Amino acid sequence: MTDIPGYALLGGVNAPADLRRLPATELPALALEVRRYLIETLGRIGGHFAANLGTVELSIALHRAFDTPHDRLVWDVGHQAYPHKMLTGRRARLETIRRLGGLAPFCHRAESEYDTFGVGHSSTSISAAAGMAAAVRVKNEKRRVVAVIGDGGMTAGMAFEALNHAGHLKLDMLVIYNDNDMSISENVGALRNHSARLLRRLGIDAPHKQRPASEDHNEAHLDNPGAIFETLGFGYHGPVDGHDLDALGAALERLRDASGPQLLHVVTVKGKGFDPAELDPIKYHGVTQFDPVTGAFPRKKTAGAPSYTQVFGQWLCEAAAADPAVVAITPAMREGSGLVDYAQRFPERYFDVGIAEQHAVTLAAGLACEGLKPVCAIYSTFLQRGYDQLIHDVAIQNLPVLFALDRGGLVGADGATHHGAYDFSYLRCIPNLVVMAPSDENECRRMLATGLTLQQPSAVRYPRGNGSGVACDTEARPLAVGKGRILREAHGRRRPRVAILAFGAMVQPALEAAEIFDAVVADMRFVKPLDTELILELANENDLLVTLEDNARLGGAGSAVNEVLVAQHHTVPVLNLGLPDQFIEHGTREELLAQCGLDTAGIQRAVAKRLRSRDLDRPSSAQSA
Amino acid sequence: MTDIPGYALLGGVNAPADLRRLPATELPALALEVRRYLIETLGRIGGHFAANLGTVELSIALHRAFDTPHDRLVWDVGHQAYPHKMLTGRRARLETIRRLGGLAPFCHRAESEYDTFGVGHSSTSISAAAGMAAAVRVKNEKRRVVAVIGDGGMTAGMAFEALNHAGHLKLDMLVIYNDNDMSISENVGALRNHSARLLRRLGIDAPHKQRPASEDHNEAHLDNPGAIFETLGFGYHGPVDGHDLDALGAALERLRDASGPQLLHVVTVKGKGFDPAELDPIKYHGVTQFDPVTGAFPRKKTAGAPSYTQVFGQWLCEAAAADPAVVAITPAMREGSGLVDYAQRFPERYFDVGIAEQHAVTLAAGLACEGLKPVCAIYSTFLQRGYDQLIHDVAIQNLPVLFALDRGGLVGADGATHHGAYDFSYLRCIPNLVVMAPSDENECRRMLATGLTLQQPSAVRYPRGNGSGVACDTEARPLAVGKGRILREAHGRRRPRVAILAFGAMVQPALEAAEIFDAVVADMRFVKPLDTELILELANENDLLVTLEDNARLGGAGSAVNEVLVAQHHTVPVLNLGLPDQFIEHGTREELLAQCGLDTAGIQRAVAKRLRSRDLDRPSSAQSA
Repeated sequence: MTDIPGYALLGGVNAPADLRRLPATELPALALEVRRYLIETLGRIGGHFAANLGTVELSIALHRAFDTPHDRLVWDVGHQAYPHKMLTGRRARLETIRRLGGLAPFCHRAESEYDTFGVGHSSTSISAAAGMAAAVRVKNEKRRVVAVIGDGGMTAGMAFEALNHAGHLKLDMLVIYNDNDMSISENVGALRNHSARLLRRLGIDAPHKQRPASEDHNEAHLDNPGAIFETLGFGYHGPVDGHDLDALGAALERLRDASGPQLLHVVTVKGKGFDPAELDPIKYHGVTQFDPVTGAFPRKKTAGAPSYTQVFGQWLCEAAAADPAVVAITPAMREGSGLVDYAQRFPERYFDVGIAEQHAVTLAAGLACEGLKPVCAIYSTFLQRGYDQLIHDVAIQNLPVLFALDRGGLVGADGATHHGAYDFSYLRCIPNLVVMAPSDENECRRMLATGLTLQQPSAVRYPRGNGSGVACDTEARPLAVGKGRILREAHGRRRPRVAILAFGAMVQPALEAAEIFDAVVADMRFVKPLDTELILELANENDLLVTLEDNARLGGAGSAVNEVLVAQHHTVPVLNLGLPDQFIEHGTREELLAQCGLDTAGIQRAVAKRLRSRDLDRPSSAQSA
Repeated sequence: MTDIPGYALLGGVNAPADLRRLPATELPALALEVRRYLIETLGRIGGHFAANLGTVELSIALHRAFDTPHDRLVWDVGHQAYPHKMLTGRRARLETIRRLGGLAPFCHRAESEYDTFGVGHSSTSISAAAGMAAAVRVKNEKRRVVAVIGDGGMTAGMAFEALNHAGHLKLDMLVIYNDNDMSISENVGALRNHSARLLRRLGIDAPHKQRPASEDHNEAHLDNPGAIFETLGFGYHGPVDGHDLDALGAALERLRDASGPQLLHVVTVKGKGFDPAELDPIKYHGVTQFDPVTGAFPRKKTAGAPSYTQVFGQWLCEAAAADPAVVAITPAMREGSGLVDYAQRFPERYFDVGIAEQHAVTLAAGLACEGLKPVCAIYSTFLQRGYDQLIHDVAIQNLPVLFALDRGGLVGADGATHHGAYDFSYLRCIPNLVVMAPSDENECRRMLATGLTLQQPSAVRYPRGNGSGVACDTEARPLAVGKGRILREAHGRRRPRVAILAFGAMVQPALEAAEIFDAVVADMRFVKPLDTELILELANENDLLVTLEDNARLGGAGSAVNEVLVAQHHTVPVLNLGLPDQFIEHGTREELLAQCGLDTAGIQRAVAKRLRSRDLDRPSSAQSA
């Protein structure tokens, strides 16, 4: 890479080695350039934003103090690793981030030797770094290991597990506790209250609003903020101002070769250096585009269809207004899950547990034990963190917890770590659980209402993005459990006769794809229990059944349809369409669906190909046994 | 219930109300009777033992101090809840515990109103109790909530998540921290070191051996053992001697109506009151039968076939001796996973992380990043706790971690919470992962060896209990990935021709069941990747394929076979046999398999029934398309 106009220093930093050659006096200017480049680039293309402004100095200081990539630097989550990417040879490609074929949204081992551990979900870094530090010990190598984790990530149990174990083993490793008093929303938890009080007392207060929670506990411990880390076996250092390069450099220098587990408490400001983002870091956590001077967002397109997230949020408010037993739980996803209004209107029935999916699920179970109606709002991909709790605490006890699973299927720019690609597979094997997938907003409301009436656990799984803009019933009426519906009948009697059994977000493309085949289209509505009757009817009346879902083909809803046909001795040919058995990277949702053959054209191609097979010529193939 | 000879006090306690009427001076005598009854009963029938001797006084004190069941008492794990069961009307049925139709092995909501939350896996109690306490607040009720959690359970992240959240909300609840310095094995983690040092200094030292780990950290904090809990927002009280009924009663009395989250540190001795168990609580954690006076176990039956657990442990030692890159990880299951010898021989390559499955999996990923060959030994049911880490940290990055999944399928007496009934379903949807299931000990060794050679993640899933006693090759040779084998050919040409495609532990019953049908039997070996070629060959040559597994039918290995046939346009009739879509309670493994129709007779019945169907008369049904 070469010099870039207006970036005299940054243009010369193509790897950390370049950075290490700069005189320390030039670093503040470099930091300014990094920050300006971030603002300019992300203003143009969007992406994770505020967190990256907070880690500019930290990224510079870490790559100077440590011999990366020989020394291992593990970033938690990775949405704050853009400066790290810029300093490790990927600055010129930053404008491709989160796009198809472009830089990965988070750290990614295949992308750079400086990305030591792939990431996306939070709170994994200490465990991964502990593994690396343990390997250093086993192999008797000379290599330093550093994990960088935010205060949001620190609320997850696995961070605690890792601290406790690394402390026990006395591993040589350094944890940077990047404390900006924020998760994606405000951070939650007693640990956070504790930390915030400390920072205020030290005069290192972030400019954004503190939550008004009373914080009268534990003042006695204010003088020892590191007690929790020290109890877990870590040496506690800091806090240091994470935007003061000299202070950071000195602290890292001091700790670089310390033996045993050490933790450096670094205080940063999310959105640092860009006033609008400092003042409202939640709004600027992830952005589309904005004006790099004023921070203004482009005017939103004229009101289109609402997102499923919004539909859920509105339904939840209606449900809570109508029934005082409704309570809602989110693991740190108030904005993402559409709970902002709900949280304001029903604060006493709103539980943001922090990044703590395991606790979220079992807390919901406890609430259900007492006769309340918990709605646990959680992204599909994050429910993987609460899988045991779903089985062990909710399903075995058959407790009526309703899971609102946002971001089912392909999520787009967040990529492989965030697709909700496995939920049908890992949910439908669980006894007692009802699994629903809506084809439009009104269906989503009705399914949520259905879940709330059940005396057993249920999940409504809906995609990222907007609905189709259908009119919604004023009152969301529950559906008959386990019943699908025909949305399109065949007009003619063309042979071979095709029926598409579509699930959730795939119903719309199914309707479009159906035209050229004059296919019947069923909106199956329920992944579990399946509508066996409807399946058999379609099997009897058609020459080919096509199952269609945006879940992994392996073990998914189509596989469930196969099971029914097999059990019913039916040998109608079936084509299972769904996500392939590979991890899907990032891109727009539309691009990725097309890549997987799940757009209208792809579905048509697959069905047409299947129809050319010899077995479909045989008239007997569609007969019931 | 009536008086029982020799148990003057216990005979009169049929509910906590009876207990509350006893004068306090009689309680020590009652405790003696409870303990004697436990020793006598468990000596006869076996069961979880040592932990229950530690909670006798605590159970008495809690039911006296609190108005159960109106006040909610939540036991963690539940293997220490036998005294609680005895005091809540289930004493006479204690001898049925863990048996088919008998008392549940752990707490179970359907069994008693005193069992407020079903359990089996550890570390859920604080979350569940927090949910109940939050419900008390929402509903504005008068009701106390108490969770009892051991120091082993406290190492799991979800306990930390729950403490952090309950502390933040300032919920009115009491956590009893039952500290016996033991998990099932010795407890692990810096928190434990800290606690153990404290107890020694206070003179409350457990009689069993302390681990020799150097413990020179953090002496400064010895005077404030509760710092970690206080930082998390809990009031810390104690430690009190958990076998001193007066002290316990006084402490509970004092805390009963305290507001806000409170934690009482109670020190107990696992095995208390029975010398052999006090001296070796690991040996007496769970027992079969023993002499109630000497503690002697009956002489083991003459050496039969080794258990799969032993086979794994021995293979691991061989592998580690041959390859210095092999490292092993267990989440607190050294004995259960067969790692005792390995831990002694290769202590520097042995990582017991405590009850911390999430960390265990990601630690393994970190170790693999550095070129080591981690073998993560974990029970099938507990891998549910590390599901996100398996997908996000191991599989997406395609890291070569080998999972040794013990206790796959039905586990018997531990019941619904412990069956490994879903692993095929939740594993086979994950890209990059190889899933194997051995049909005997030699196969198990070969599969483990196979996993170690792969440049991708893999899992070998084997059942609880003994192998078939086959001779094992001296050296475990890797298998060809994705290739099954025919174990039984059909002798005649009897129609209809049947082939059984069996997975793992079901291969043996398949061979037995095959006789009367002269069926072909394939040992499929790989759940993923499946042997497509073999499946098609069998489909072409037979009139009925029977898939057989001890995993849930929904989404399991049989479902994977269906997918292959569908994709290959094959319409041979199939019968999927596996676990039904319901939670299976406790009993012996044999009883439960028979109940599910997965014993030899059940398989034969199901196949015979299927063979009577009309569709199998049609000669065309076995033709390939």
